[in-house]
Amino acid sequence: MKNINIGIVGYGNIGRGVEKAVAHAQDMTLSCVVTRRDPQAIKLETQGVAVITPEEAMKCSDIDVMILCGGSATDLMVQGPQFVAKFNTVDSYDTHSRIPEYFDMMRSAAQDTLALISAGWDPGLFSLMRLLSGAILPKGETATFWGDGVSQGHSDAIRRIEGVQDATQYTVPVPQAIEQVRAGNGAALTTRDKHKRVCYVVLKDGADKQTVTQAIVSMPAYFADYDTAVHFVTQEELNAEHKKMPHGGFVVHSGTTSAQRQTMEFALKLESNPEFTGSVLVACARAVKRLYDDGRRGAVSMLDVPLGYYSTMDAAALRGELL
Amino acid sequence: MKNINIGIVGYGNIGRGVEKAVAHAQDMTLSCVVTRRDPQAIKLETQGVAVITPEEAMKCSDIDVMILCGGSATDLMVQGPQFVAKFNTVDSYDTHSRIPEYFDMMRSAAQDTLALISAGWDPGLFSLMRLLSGAILPKGETATFWGDGVSQGHSDAIRRIEGVQDATQYTVPVPQAIEQVRAGNGAALTTRDKHKRVCYVVLKDGADKQTVTQAIVSMPAYFADYDTAVHFVTQEELNAEHKKMPHGGFVVHSGTTSAQRQTMEFALKLESNPEFTGSVLVACARAVKRLYDDGRRGAVSMLDVPLGYYSTMDAAALRGELL
Repeated sequence: MKNINIGIVGYGNIGRGVEKAVAHAQDMTLSCVVTRRDPQAIKLETQGVAVITPEEAMKCSDIDVMILCGGSATDLMVQGPQFVAKFNTVDSYDTHSRIPEYFDMMRSAAQDTLALISAGWDPGLFSLMRLLSGAILPKGETATFWGDGVSQGHSDAIRRIEGVQDATQYTVPVPQAIEQVRAGNGAALTTRDKHKRVCYVVLKDGADKQTVTQAIVSMPAYFADYDTAVHFVTQEELNAEHKKMPHGGFVVHSGTTSAQRQTMEFALKLESNPEFTGSVLVACARAVKRLYDDGRRGAVSMLDVPLGYYSTMDAAALRGELL
Repeated sequence: MKNINIGIVGYGNIGRGVEKAVAHAQDMTLSCVVTRRDPQAIKLETQGVAVITPEEAMKCSDIDVMILCGGSATDLMVQGPQFVAKFNTVDSYDTHSRIPEYFDMMRSAAQDTLALISAGWDPGLFSLMRLLSGAILPKGETATFWGDGVSQGHSDAIRRIEGVQDATQYTVPVPQAIEQVRAGNGAALTTRDKHKRVCYVVLKDGADKQTVTQAIVSMPAYFADYDTAVHFVTQEELNAEHKKMPHGGFVVHSGTTSAQRQTMEFALKLESNPEFTGSVLVACARAVKRLYDDGRRGAVSMLDVPLGYYSTMDAAALRGELL
């Protein structure tokens, strides 16, 4: 069977994660990487793959699926409709409140193509688990915990404080809250009850620890609603210990059937968040190709995909090996 | 919208679990329970539902999905093709080695109907997790652990030993094996390495502990290949402590992307195995009705179902609430 030709749009952390995942996929070939930067300045891991501009990409005719690796804040709202007008796409759009709007936009823009939006692990795999557990145990509560993991947005927010040279912020689930959810007593827990925030901060010369700490813990939206711990470290310590991108989390559903308690849990422990996300996007690209070949057009999410479509194995092999 | 009319075929532990789950499903109505026993002898939890014979069932015209709750060993190979010739069906066929044969049989027998076979948690939810994790992290190993939970088959096997009055057998995962899998060192583990067996046994008067213990731990297929602990208790202790039907287990996948380790875990902790299985079958019945309405005929498994079809919510609501 002919390999699936993949294009990567945007070569940041997620784009590089997708590149690694395509290299592990026997049924796929990386055809091109699309960048708005100077293509000459991009050095890929994969040999012999063209780096091209968005304008050049629009002339390509041999791409089965474009994996859009831009951010939700600005990139995807523009790039998504542009690319899906010509190509099947997968993206990781994750601005929760605007997903219905983005979905409609992509569905309208997809003339004779298919978009799979909001893929990854949350939204994505965690959405699947929330759906499954709620459908199977309707008398129950689902809670999602994130971490231990680095939040880039929170780390960036600390770096913008005067006197801060560098910082890494970890989101950490609270063990007692997890136990409450498992026991079926989690309905009243707030996001604050469920997570704490731990910050490692490098000060600029002469900056005051007390002032910076106060600026962090009182920051609205980011930290004011959480128990926040601030640790000061040297740049060397931060570089050595806190420059990786681990993440993870879990979806816990605790429900009852008659008087019996039943719990379902899905957990991820990721040493590299962007590489794992890239791996999910690549499995989704395989599903998009199959759905497209079935005649599906418009927009879908992971909630719409038969799980067998993510696999390289055919339905009979899956039944024989996995059921 | 019109409720989905459900029939239950077979009123044992699973059938009663399905009855409870249908009672929690706002979009479903229990229409009938089908039994080979004397219908007069069956007392349902649900008021006003007909208990009928298989012959009477074949004359029903208002059932959307029949949930077949018989056992795999003898019931389903006969009942499955009979019922799917007239009704959409869901079953929990779980004789792993014969699933391809059973699938073909059901597909052939389904004239203008749809069968969803081998639903439940394993095969079923655990199959979905093995599929997803292998598709996302192809460079990795998946391991399935069962327990802590009661195995009816192993409990029955002990009860057949001379001198045994009653018994309950628990399958228990070995914590060190779980850690090895998480760390990516689980490839060489055997089923014996991963599980131990713990038996609670009531002796008949005059029976010898040593003889019974030896008969258990040396029993081929059931116990000889495992570390097996045997505890002797009174019938009162067994009745008070060991007559419930808890089960559970987990699917652990540990893989790598570049040099980064990524683990995915799905865990169930069930106070009632048959009630949870019944809840899964009911969600599958909802999916079968939707697939049938889409025009799907023949046979499928949970691997073929878009997850959104298990839910009572429509696609737009799912996107808004769960993505």
